[in-house]
Amino acid sequence: MSDWQEIPGGVTAPRGYRAAGIAAGLKPSGLPDLALILSDVEAIAAGVFTTSYVRAACVDYCRERLQSKHSARAILCNAGQANAATGSQGWLDALESAMLLAQTLNISAESVLLASTGVIGQRIRMDALRAGIPQLVAAVSETGGDSAAQAITTTDLVTKSIALETTIDDRPVRIGGIAKGSGMIHPNMATLLAFVTCDAAVSTSLWQQMLSRAAERSFNQITVDGDTSTNDTLIALANGQSRTPAITEMGPEAEKLEGMLTAVCQHLAKAIARDGEGATCLIEVQVTGAPDEKAAHQVAKTIVGSSLVKSAIFGRDPNWGRIAAAAGRAGVPFEQENLRIQLGDFLLMENGQPLAFDRAAASAYLKQAATAAYLKEDTVLILVSIGNGSASGKAWGCDLSYDYVKINAEYTT
Amino acid sequence: MSDWQEIPGGVTAPRGYRAAGIAAGLKPSGLPDLALILSDVEAIAAGVFTTSYVRAACVDYCRERLQSKHSARAILCNAGQANAATGSQGWLDALESAMLLAQTLNISAESVLLASTGVIGQRIRMDALRAGIPQLVAAVSETGGDSAAQAITTTDLVTKSIALETTIDDRPVRIGGIAKGSGMIHPNMATLLAFVTCDAAVSTSLWQQMLSRAAERSFNQITVDGDTSTNDTLIALANGQSRTPAITEMGPEAEKLEGMLTAVCQHLAKAIARDGEGATCLIEVQVTGAPDEKAAHQVAKTIVGSSLVKSAIFGRDPNWGRIAAAAGRAGVPFEQENLRIQLGDFLLMENGQPLAFDRAAASAYLKQAATAAYLKEDTVLILVSIGNGSASGKAWGCDLSYDYVKINAEYTT
Repeated sequence: MSDWQEIPGGVTAPRGYRAAGIAAGLKPSGLPDLALILSDVEAIAAGVFTTSYVRAACVDYCRERLQSKHSARAILCNAGQANAATGSQGWLDALESAMLLAQTLNISAESVLLASTGVIGQRIRMDALRAGIPQLVAAVSETGGDSAAQAITTTDLVTKSIALETTIDDRPVRIGGIAKGSGMIHPNMATLLAFVTCDAAVSTSLWQQMLSRAAERSFNQITVDGDTSTNDTLIALANGQSRTPAITEMGPEAEKLEGMLTAVCQHLAKAIARDGEGATCLIEVQVTGAPDEKAAHQVAKTIVGSSLVKSAIFGRDPNWGRIAAAAGRAGVPFEQENLRIQLGDFLLMENGQPLAFDRAAASAYLKQAATAAYLKEDTVLILVSIGNGSASGKAWGCDLSYDYVKINAEYTT
Repeated sequence: MSDWQEIPGGVTAPRGYRAAGIAAGLKPSGLPDLALILSDVEAIAAGVFTTSYVRAACVDYCRERLQSKHSARAILCNAGQANAATGSQGWLDALESAMLLAQTLNISAESVLLASTGVIGQRIRMDALRAGIPQLVAAVSETGGDSAAQAITTTDLVTKSIALETTIDDRPVRIGGIAKGSGMIHPNMATLLAFVTCDAAVSTSLWQQMLSRAAERSFNQITVDGDTSTNDTLIALANGQSRTPAITEMGPEAEKLEGMLTAVCQHLAKAIARDGEGATCLIEVQVTGAPDEKAAHQVAKTIVGSSLVKSAIFGRDPNWGRIAAAAGRAGVPFEQENLRIQLGDFLLMENGQPLAFDRAAASAYLKQAATAAYLKEDTVLILVSIGNGSASGKAWGCDLSYDYVKINAEYTT
């Protein structure tokens, strides 16, 4: 039923974008650590940021910029140091980074947006950044989406990139996206970053509304460990280079664009959950019968975030009592007589009554997920209905394994 | 500064209480699994229960009983089956349990309160219970507190029991308590149960208020894995057998009693957190400078519940950035310029600026906690100030180790 198809190219798939990723010596490992996404023309820009009261300097910077000016040309992202909890010096480093890039690109510093990921409490290695920016600008190309996707990662096992294409007014329109994250916060690595490019022509306020709704149905519905980062940043650019008619209000074309934007965000969000620290599978929880979407989202996210549900799935244990318990504590009122729980094809509870089921077969269902192909068949599906309401919602997460503890405990000291 | 002293005896330390714990064959292991606490006279009864919308039958039963009648003679507790998510049959089993005990004791069924812990979705083994009740009643004694404490455990490593004594009007008044729990929910074992006995004379409404406040400052401030149980139950009896003047309103005597009640609840709560699944140490977070106690509690509990903070402490890593990040996402507004973080004696951040500190010494501080004596010196102390407010609050938890995952993943199948 989707109105779009997948295409290669990531954030450089839409028209009028170039990107690059280089190793600038910010990461001790020497791996790529500096990325640039550049629109040929000023693009309208929307953003969604961490709600934490402890925020990275780049988050405060982007919020200020986007409040005074709803457009941008460039997104600069460094990996290695989060520039969070760095005090007033961190703020000065952010300003200098934006200024340096603007000078090198010969654009206004107001047109630069910033993101950082890495160790909290560490300043950006400014010497390396200063030396790296001219190289980065020299490296931008129309096929640079993949290298940008690589350069924003920290301990991610895979890069996360996608591009989709649809038609509006018989002309192609594309949205590309890249993201990083593998654990809401990494071993000290401050986390979720996602950058989306689009070549549609759309009004500023509508684009921000679409992005906020898409974030609610994607990034805000994933959890790896419940730890919201100081650096969470989602920025979406739309530069109009598709030369399609401007979309200024909701309607069929706007719904199509928002649907594709949501699909891009959900793809990236699921890829992050699947790459959760130590994860062996992706867990998708679908909640139906809720009074409203917010309630459905809340129940779904509580279940997928339960340490006990996550541990049980890692142990391939169809332990439905934990799913019921997590649903019950989600803060959404419902009658237990209406509770229905299904794991894959196995119906485990109906009308609040436990049902007999083939435990060995259900365990085998969980086992196959862990051995299946990455992001294809490796999804464990949990279906929960809490009543007769018409709203539904999904959430995504991953199982909790020994490796999660190993990754997060065996760090510096 | 405490106005009381510790005494032996647990729930049978206060006057006019007897208790017992026996092995009735409810647990597959054959270990003690049925407990009774009995007051010689009708005692006023207050309760605090799980807020989950999926609740055990015994929780619904106790709520109904305490709404219509604020007193009780007996608390019957079985371990092995949670009687949660057991549908209408679970409710009938609860009613029968209460009736059987009442008949055997020759008291009104209205005077019996119930609690269950064990596997969610499993009915109580009623045949074993029916056979066990006469034995249980025959076993009650004035020194039975310890055996009751033993019989309510599931996979707890230690029993949790305490008794304190003070004087009111120059006469001794005692409060005893027992609890179980090691993980908000166990490997399928539904969790936190605590029973408190007191021989003071106190009015019903005042006793319920005192218990609710004490729960806010103790059991509601611990977290092992964030999973609220279907069976959480705290019941406190006060039978007046100390023959001290009735306390009917707040004042110095009431404050003394409430202080001692809070101390009993905090002791039991800390013992549960320390016995958290796989834990190697107790973590205490103290938050100061908050606008109100609720805000302080929220920040403290968010920090102590952060998987990343817990993993870092297991790894003996003084990773203060994670503490700052957890404080920031607690939902309590504050200015990061006011943030102050201290780990034991090590000041790590002040006025929102990171400070230099001796990382090896801070790691050694964390190491000693794991090797120190249980519940004595094994506490890791985290002090956080978020501003200039006058309110403070504490929360307790434990570190996150490989064994947590092992215990929760390697279950039945």
